[in-house]
Amino acid sequence: MPIASICGGKGTCGKCKVKAIGPLSPLTAQEKGHLSAEEIAAGYRLACQARVQGPTVVEVPPIVEVQYKIAFPLAIAERGLKPNVRKVYLCLPRPSLGDQRPDLTRLKGALGFDFEAAELTALRRLPEVLRRADWGVTAVLVGSRLISMEEGDTQGESYGIAFDLGTTTVAAYLMDLNTGQQLGAAAATNRQTAYGDDVMSRLDHAHAGGLAELRDAALETLNLLVEEVCRKAEVLPQNIYQAVLVGNTCMHHLLLGIDPYPIGVAPYIPALGDALDLPARELGLVINEGANVHLLPVVAGFVGADAVADALAAGLGEDGRVRLMIDIGTNAEMILSAGGRILACAAAAGPAFEGARISCGMRAAPGAIDRVEIISGRVKAHTIGDQPPLGLAGSGLVSLAAALRRRGLLSRRGRFVADATPDGLFAPGERGPELLLAPPDGAGTGRAIALSQGDIAELLLAKAAIEAGVNILLKETGLAVGDVEEVLIAGSFGNYVDKLDALDIGLVPPLPPDRVVGIGNAAGAGAVLALLSLDVRGRARELARRIEYIELSARPDFNEEFVRAMSFPEIE
Amino acid sequence: MPIASICGGKGTCGKCKVKAIGPLSPLTAQEKGHLSAEEIAAGYRLACQARVQGPTVVEVPPIVEVQYKIAFPLAIAERGLKPNVRKVYLCLPRPSLGDQRPDLTRLKGALGFDFEAAELTALRRLPEVLRRADWGVTAVLVGSRLISMEEGDTQGESYGIAFDLGTTTVAAYLMDLNTGQQLGAAAATNRQTAYGDDVMSRLDHAHAGGLAELRDAALETLNLLVEEVCRKAEVLPQNIYQAVLVGNTCMHHLLLGIDPYPIGVAPYIPALGDALDLPARELGLVINEGANVHLLPVVAGFVGADAVADALAAGLGEDGRVRLMIDIGTNAEMILSAGGRILACAAAAGPAFEGARISCGMRAAPGAIDRVEIISGRVKAHTIGDQPPLGLAGSGLVSLAAALRRRGLLSRRGRFVADATPDGLFAPGERGPELLLAPPDGAGTGRAIALSQGDIAELLLAKAAIEAGVNILLKETGLAVGDVEEVLIAGSFGNYVDKLDALDIGLVPPLPPDRVVGIGNAAGAGAVLALLSLDVRGRARELARRIEYIELSARPDFNEEFVRAMSFPEIE
Repeated sequence: MPIASICGGKGTCGKCKVKAIGPLSPLTAQEKGHLSAEEIAAGYRLACQARVQGPTVVEVPPIVEVQYKIAFPLAIAERGLKPNVRKVYLCLPRPSLGDQRPDLTRLKGALGFDFEAAELTALRRLPEVLRRADWGVTAVLVGSRLISMEEGDTQGESYGIAFDLGTTTVAAYLMDLNTGQQLGAAAATNRQTAYGDDVMSRLDHAHAGGLAELRDAALETLNLLVEEVCRKAEVLPQNIYQAVLVGNTCMHHLLLGIDPYPIGVAPYIPALGDALDLPARELGLVINEGANVHLLPVVAGFVGADAVADALAAGLGEDGRVRLMIDIGTNAEMILSAGGRILACAAAAGPAFEGARISCGMRAAPGAIDRVEIISGRVKAHTIGDQPPLGLAGSGLVSLAAALRRRGLLSRRGRFVADATPDGLFAPGERGPELLLAPPDGAGTGRAIALSQGDIAELLLAKAAIEAGVNILLKETGLAVGDVEEVLIAGSFGNYVDKLDALDIGLVPPLPPDRVVGIGNAAGAGAVLALLSLDVRGRARELARRIEYIELSARPDFNEEFVRAMSFPEIE
Repeated sequence: MPIASICGGKGTCGKCKVKAIGPLSPLTAQEKGHLSAEEIAAGYRLACQARVQGPTVVEVPPIVEVQYKIAFPLAIAERGLKPNVRKVYLCLPRPSLGDQRPDLTRLKGALGFDFEAAELTALRRLPEVLRRADWGVTAVLVGSRLISMEEGDTQGESYGIAFDLGTTTVAAYLMDLNTGQQLGAAAATNRQTAYGDDVMSRLDHAHAGGLAELRDAALETLNLLVEEVCRKAEVLPQNIYQAVLVGNTCMHHLLLGIDPYPIGVAPYIPALGDALDLPARELGLVINEGANVHLLPVVAGFVGADAVADALAAGLGEDGRVRLMIDIGTNAEMILSAGGRILACAAAAGPAFEGARISCGMRAAPGAIDRVEIISGRVKAHTIGDQPPLGLAGSGLVSLAAALRRRGLLSRRGRFVADATPDGLFAPGERGPELLLAPPDGAGTGRAIALSQGDIAELLLAKAAIEAGVNILLKETGLAVGDVEEVLIAGSFGNYVDKLDALDIGLVPPLPPDRVVGIGNAAGAGAVLALLSLDVRGRARELARRIEYIELSARPDFNEEFVRAMSFPEIE
C-alpha cells in the first residue's frame, strides 16, 4: 500500500506515521525525534522505520489524492488545429492476377502519397484487416509513419492526450484531434511519491538502483490517467494516436529510464535537452501501440519541459513586453521575457509549499488548510473540501503568514510577535512558541496542528530564493522591478494562493495587484497546445533554444540577493 | 527434439520415421501407407502420428545439418565500401557551471553534425558511459540514428552480418565494415523445417495459428548463426550494428510475424514489397539492440528478396546482354535480362530437388547421394561426406537421370527402358520397377534406397515447370533459346548439380556448356553486397522496381509450354 513520504524512507521527514500494534522492531532514533510521547503511547510508528516481527495490525491513513485545478484559462482552440495525426479512409481496388501489387503498395497507391515508414505492428495486421474489411480501411498516419490500419471508416475517432508529469501531481487532458475540443481531464498523485516527495529524494533513489521502480511508478500513473479519462469520455485508448508530455527534467529523464543523477550534482547536467519522439509501445504507454509520444524540449536540469510549456502557453517572448512567470510546483522556475530576450532560472523553493520541511505541512489535498483568516484575534482555518483539518497546505502557510504580517504578529525577519497577541494566539511548544491551528480533538489526525517559528523560517527561505532569482533575472536585463508589466503565477501552488497574500509576504515582486495574474496549470495548457499543433511544437523548440538559462549557483551575487530577500516586505 | 518433416505433421510425407518401443497409439492409415511390414515389425512409426501412452524408448535419427556451399565466386570487395555504420571517437569538453549543455547536445557539438534521432537504449546509457569513460567515447551511428555509445575508442570494431534465410537452409556472413573483409560464414537448417519442408506447409501452419512458432523458429536459427560466426571470429554480437537479410517472400513475412497466407492462394499477394528497415531489438535479433536490420525488397509472392539479391550479385540488367538466371532452391525462380528489360517468374519446382515427393529423397546433407555413375552396367553412388547412403539428394537425382538417359535406360517420357538393361539394373518393386541404389545392409538407414518410376515423373514435372517458365520469359522478350548468352545457376541446388547433367535432362536450355555457369549462393552474395554499401541497397530498390514479374498461372500459354516440356531432350 502506498504511504505518503517526503524523504523516501530515510526517516527524516516524519510524514509516514502509522498506528501499528504487534511485535515490531525497537523505536529508532529517527522515530524518537519525530514522535511525541503521546503518539508513542498510542502506538504510532514511522512506516519507513518500524519492522514487523510477527502478526501486527497497522492502521494506514487513507491516500489522499491531490486536489488539483487542472483547468487553464487560455483559449487553446483558437490557436489553430494542425495535429500530427492523419486518418484516411480508402476503398482499395481488389487484387487480381492482373494486379498483384503487395498490400502495402496497393495502400500507398490509393493514398496518393508515400510515407517514410510503417510500424511493424501495422504491417502485421495489414493482410488480415484489408481482407476482413473487404478492402475498405482507414489508414492512420502519424507524421510520415503508418502506425495503424483499421477496418471501415474510423476517421471520426482521432484522439490525443497531453500529460503534465509533475513531481507531485500528474495531469492528463484528452483531446479530440478532429475538433480541438477537450473531452476530459484528470489528475492523480505521481506514484513515485512513495519513494520521496521532492526531486532530490527521487534522484537519490534512482541512482541507488531504483531507476526502474521510479520509471514504472511514473508510467503506472500515466496509464491510470489514460484509463480514467478514456472511461469517462467513452474513448478507446487504442484510438489515441498522439501523446505530448511535459514535466521537469528529472521526471522527463525518469520516465525515459535515464538516470537523472548528474542533474542533482554540480554542474547539474541533463542527459538530453532536445524534443524527443518515440513510439508509445517503446515507452510502455497504453494507448495505440504505434502512437507517437512527443516530449517537449528541456532547457536545463531545473528548467524542464514544463517550464517551456508554461512559456509556450503564456506566449512569452511573442512580444517585447516585460513579463515574469513564476511557476511554483515542487520546485520554482522563474522566466522573464523582455524586449525579445527570454531568461530563466530555478530555485529549490517548492518543498515549503508542498508540505515538506513544514512541521504540519501537507500537499493541497482534501483536509489541507488552504486559507486562514484571523478574525477578532482568533484563527479561522478553511480546509479543502471543508473536511476536518489534516495539515497545512502551501497556500494556507502563505495565507497565515500574510494574515500574521498584516496584524503585526510576525516581524519582517519572521519572528512571532508574542507581546502583540491579545489573548494567547501563541503558546509555548516543544521547540519554541507555536500557533495552534487545530487542537488534537479538532484535527482529522487526532494530533494538534500548529505553526512553528521554524515553519516561518522555511517559508522565508523559499520566498528569498524566488525573490533573489527574480532580481538576478531583472539585473541581467538591466530592468527594475517596476518595469515588469505582468506577473504570471503558474503551477499547482499558483492555483490556490491568493495573490494579495503572495504580494504581502513578498513572494511576488511589489507591484500593483492588477499586474499579477494566476494562470492555472500553464504547463498542461502548453502540452495541449503542442498536442493540437505541429506549429506549436516548432515554437516550443524555438523557445527552448531562445531561453537563456541563468545558473544561480554560478552567480557570485546570488548569495547577496538571497540574504537581502530574507525578510518580509513592509505592509503599507 | 526437432525431427525432419516435409508435410509438417500431416502424415503424408513419411519422412519422420522413428523407432519407438513402448505403449503407443495404434497405427494410423497414414502409417500403414508409409511403413513396410518389416519396418512395422522392427518398431518403426511416424513421429507425427504415433502418440506415446506410457514409458517409451524412442530412437530419433540424428539431425543432419544441411551441407551448404556458402561461398560465392563474386568479388564483392571490389564493388566499393559504403556501409551504413559510422563510428566516431570523440573527446568531449567536460561540463561546468559555465557550460551546462546536456550530454546529448555536447555530443552533437563535438560530432560537428546533427543526427535525426537517437535510440532510447543509447540515451539511457549516455550519462553513465560519458562519465565512466571520462568523456572519451565512441558514438555509433547507423544512417542518421545514434544507436549506441561506447567507452573509449572502439572505431576498429565495426561489424555487419548478412543473412540468406532460405526455406531449408539459412546462411550467415560476418563482415568487417571497416575493411569489407569476410570474417566468417556459417549455415544451418532453418528450424522451421520441423513444421514442414516446403513453403506451402509453412503457409498452412502459420495460418492455422502457428505464425508465432514459425517466427520464433526462424529467429532462433538466425540467432544461432550469429552466435556461431561471432564465436569463431571472436567478435562480440553487440559490435554488429547492421544486418541485411534476404529470403523468399514467405520467409521474409514469417520472420516479420506477418501472416503470409495470401501469398499461397490466388492471386498470390504479399503484404509488402518495399525494402524495410527496423531495429534489431524489434525483430528479436541478438546483435546490438539498436542495430539496423535491412530487408531487401520483394518482387512478388514467389519472387522474393533472395531473387533480387541474386540479380544484384550477378549484375543482371547492368548491361544489354541476354542473361538467364535460374535459382533452384525449395522453389525455382527464373530471371531473364535482355536489352534493358528484366523479367522474372517462379515455379514450384524445388520440392523434387530437396527430397520431397521423391521416395528416397533427402536434402543435400552428409550421407545424401549427390552424384551417380553407371560404370559397366553397375550403379556407383557417391555420397556427401563419403558416408553410408541415407537417401537421394536433388543433384543425385539429376545425375542419375542424366546417366540413365545417356545409356538409353530412360525414355524421353521418363519410363525405365527395362529391356535395354544388361543384367537387371531394374527390379520389380512394390509400386512398379525400381532401380536399387543401396541394399538395406549397405544403407545407413538399414532400409533399401531405390529410385522409382514415380520419382522420375516428379523430376520431369519440376524440369517442365522450369523450362516452361524460361520459354515464357523468352517469348515475352521475343527471343529464342539460342539468343541466351549466359545461363547462371544459383541457389543451394545449383551448388551441387553438374551442368552437363542439367543440360542432358533439359533442366537448363539447350546451349553450349560454356554458356552455363554455376555461381553458388548468389542470394547470399547479394545480401553481403547490400550490407557493405548503401549504393547497392539503392540499386536493389531500383532492380525490384525494374523487374517485370510474369505470373505463370495467369498465362493461358503456360499449360501448353508445360506439356511440351514434359519430356527429356534427345541425347546428341
